[in-house]
Amino acid sequence: MVEEKKRITSDERDTNRLEAFSDGVIAVAITLLVLNIKIPEVPSPDKLLDERHLRDFLLNQWPILFAFVTSFLTIGIMWLNHHRVFKHIKRTDTGLLMLNLLLLLTIVFVPVPTALVAPYIIRFDQHIAAIVYSGTFLLMALCFNTLWRYASYHNRLLDKDADQHAVRAISRQFSFGPLLYLIAFGIAWLNGPASVLFQFLLALFFALPGRPARIDQQA
Amino acid sequence: MVEEKKRITSDERDTNRLEAFSDGVIAVAITLLVLNIKIPEVPSPDKLLDERHLRDFLLNQWPILFAFVTSFLTIGIMWLNHHRVFKHIKRTDTGLLMLNLLLLLTIVFVPVPTALVAPYIIRFDQHIAAIVYSGTFLLMALCFNTLWRYASYHNRLLDKDADQHAVRAISRQFSFGPLLYLIAFGIAWLNGPASVLFQFLLALFFALPGRPARIDQQA
Amino acid sequence: MVEEKKRITSDERDTNRLEAFSDGVIAVAITLLVLNIKIPEVPSPDKLLDERHLRDFLLNQWPILFAFVTSFLTIGIMWLNHHRVFKHIKRTDTGLLMLNLLLLLTIVFVPVPTALVAPYIIRFDQHIAAIVYSGTFLLMALCFNTLWRYASYHNRLLDKDADQHAVRAISRQFSFGPLLYLIAFGIAWLNGPASVLFQFLLALFFALPGRPARIDQQA
Amino acid sequence: MVEEKKRITSDERDTNRLEAFSDGVIAVAITLLVLNIKIPEVPSPDKLLDERHLRDFLLNQWPILFAFVTSFLTIGIMWLNHHRVFKHIKRTDTGLLMLNLLLLLTIVFVPVPTALVAPYIIRFDQHIAAIVYSGTFLLMALCFNTLWRYASYHNRLLDKDADQHAVRAISRQFSFGPLLYLIAFGIAWLNGPASVLFQFLLALFFALPGRPARIDQQA
Repeated sequence: MVEEKKRITSDERDTNRLEAFSDGVIAVAITLLVLNIKIPEVPSPDKLLDERHLRDFLLNQWPILFAFVTSFLTIGIMWLNHHRVFKHIKRTDTGLLMLNLLLLLTIVFVPVPTALVAPYIIRFDQHIAAIVYSGTFLLMALCFNTLWRYASYHNRLLDKDADQHAVRAISRQFSFGPLLYLIAFGIAWLNGPASVLFQFLLALFFALPGRPARIDQQA
Repeated sequence: MVEEKKRITSDERDTNRLEAFSDGVIAVAITLLVLNIKIPEVPSPDKLLDERHLRDFLLNQWPILFAFVTSFLTIGIMWLNHHRVFKHIKRTDTGLLMLNLLLLLTIVFVPVPTALVAPYIIRFDQHIAAIVYSGTFLLMALCFNTLWRYASYHNRLLDKDADQHAVRAISRQFSFGPLLYLIAFGIAWLNGPASVLFQFLLALFFALPGRPARIDQQA
Repeated sequence: MVEEKKRITSDERDTNRLEAFSDGVIAVAITLLVLNIKIPEVPSPDKLLDERHLRDFLLNQWPILFAFVTSFLTIGIMWLNHHRVFKHIKRTDTGLLMLNLLLLLTIVFVPVPTALVAPYIIRFDQHIAAIVYSGTFLLMALCFNTLWRYASYHNRLLDKDADQHAVRAISRQFSFGPLLYLIAFGIAWLNGPASVLFQFLLALFFALPGRPARIDQQA
Repeated sequence: MVEEKKRITSDERDTNRLEAFSDGVIAVAITLLVLNIKIPEVPSPDKLLDERHLRDFLLNQWPILFAFVTSFLTIGIMWLNHHRVFKHIKRTDTGLLMLNLLLLLTIVFVPVPTALVAPYIIRFDQHIAAIVYSGTFLLMALCFNTLWRYASYHNRLLDKDADQHAVRAISRQFSFGPLLYLIAFGIAWLNGPASVLFQFLLALFFALPGRPARIDQQA
């Protein structure tokens, strides 16, 4: 009995440290996004842009700001979901640790396609940047889904008292994620800007309270 | 009863992880500010600046150092206030998570206007950089205020035993924040350097112990 | 008795904060790896690469992506092992803190050789970059091994109830690490690309569940 | 009585979150040091440095590596001391939070003088870079000392059961820190390289187990 209790405590400490490390990596990745935003170079104090040119420069930054906000919200919602599933996951094993590491790999990579896609956001004749951008999010959604299915398969790593209703609700909800990002990926091959816009709307949709909130309250 | 206790513990864990993630993001953002500070390029070891030019170079960095300290203190005080309100907030929902994500978005963005405003700090004929700088802090104050009002509205997400006196004191105190940053924003349209100086003085004012400390002790 | 309990709690808090700080440093270092990945410079919106050149540019990035994934997995596995040994280490002293600091020094350094080795990954006539790359990992493995031997020597800093079987299994397993990285280091002097490939396979091998997982379950 | 207990728990949570935030900032700052280390630019794959030039390039990096290790160890030891004093500090107030913020400001700043001083490490005719470098560490030591004196003054913020012997030992030991960095600062005006070497030896001296370890064990 004491043995049992000790093991559970050790397990909880396991998921706690996994969550802490993941939070750290996600926090750094979400903040590094800002390094993509450029400001005018000032080689010397007498070479400042005047009001008009500075305003034009800043207004021309809207594509990178748009990509920044889209990626920030998408990573933020990924953190929220990570947080939500680890309310139920109470044990770890090497498989889970590795799937989580793969998920973090895709999250850490996000600043690269974000910077890549920004200047192509309004180019209807180009697709490659949008394909790489949506492909990264598709991979992220697949890694996250695999992690959840691995952990929840026959309750393998879940809390023994996990609310089966909440677990099934999460499984149902998460099956839509990869599908939606697959659609964004498909759109990118036809129309790059539409794909990025679709992903921005996805981020907004997931961010607005509604169904997910209710599931959250059940959990 | 056991059910009730379990839910409370789960809630506390919720706000704990929200605080840990926020701390991580704020810690990275406050540290990235330093990347704005430039040192002289040394293309090869025999092209070092001599004493006089290095001294002049460093003395000319005062505007970016001034902007760095102002932004560092402002983010630091924002962390302190975040910390203070989460002493009382004991539950989370999707709305709170999203408002917190928006707040983090504005904090993560701060290094950009900080770098932007630095070379314009002593240009009385220019306003745009100071407008963007003060506008970012105004947005940050508005996000923070909305988060607190959302959480404290009818005690929605507060600790059930939250000291109503302390809660009202926080609400009263925080209503001044957006007002002060609105004033800084207004000044920026008239006089850019005066607006930045005003925000530096605001940061100093909030940093010095006094009224806020007393409220803190009540809490 | 109370004194004893208090000391143990204080010790646990010690290793907790050591782990939290290490997690933070490792999380930042693993995320900074992404800064090595370059995207095409876009000096002005009308100088975008067309589809063909962008595709060629991205395809040519495979060496840095390969180095990125190798280093990411290697640091990730180092975190996993750090996490595994600190399940058993329950006390700290200045020696352990310093060995841990040295280990973090080698981990923080990894982005440099990763960026250095990338363009040399397919150059069979060059060795120096691969020597620096494998040398960094060799140092990391040696620091980690020394840390574990220091802590486990006569159970110096281990949990008093540490499972001796698990401790010996870790000691046995970890003695292979430096040896394998020494082999990678040796190969680098003969064949740079083969050394990097060997390290990639090592990372994959450690990442795949199997023996380590079983030891983990015993622990 | 219940009131009293609740307050203490709330206080502990206070210092816990202060420590977590400080750990985060220090972890990011210590890792950003690595961004100062340059690797050869590779404009295109056919413009790689050959073995000889790459070796020469890397060997010429020793000053920045030397500065990197010195700053890394100094910040690492600062973390260790921060960790040590917060074993005894159990309450916070606005004054402590602000002193801690100032301390973090000096730590976050360290990557700048580290990059600045590197190319001047072997220039005996130049002092400014070494003055800025040692001045930053002097400021850091002064902030840290002020923080400790503020917290320990009449046991203001210490654990009520704090071991007075350990507290006095820390006070005694910490009074040397600013003095030693003042000496490094003084040397910088006479001989830049000697000052940097002195600070490297200081870091080594503090890092080696010995007196501090024994004090640690008493605490």
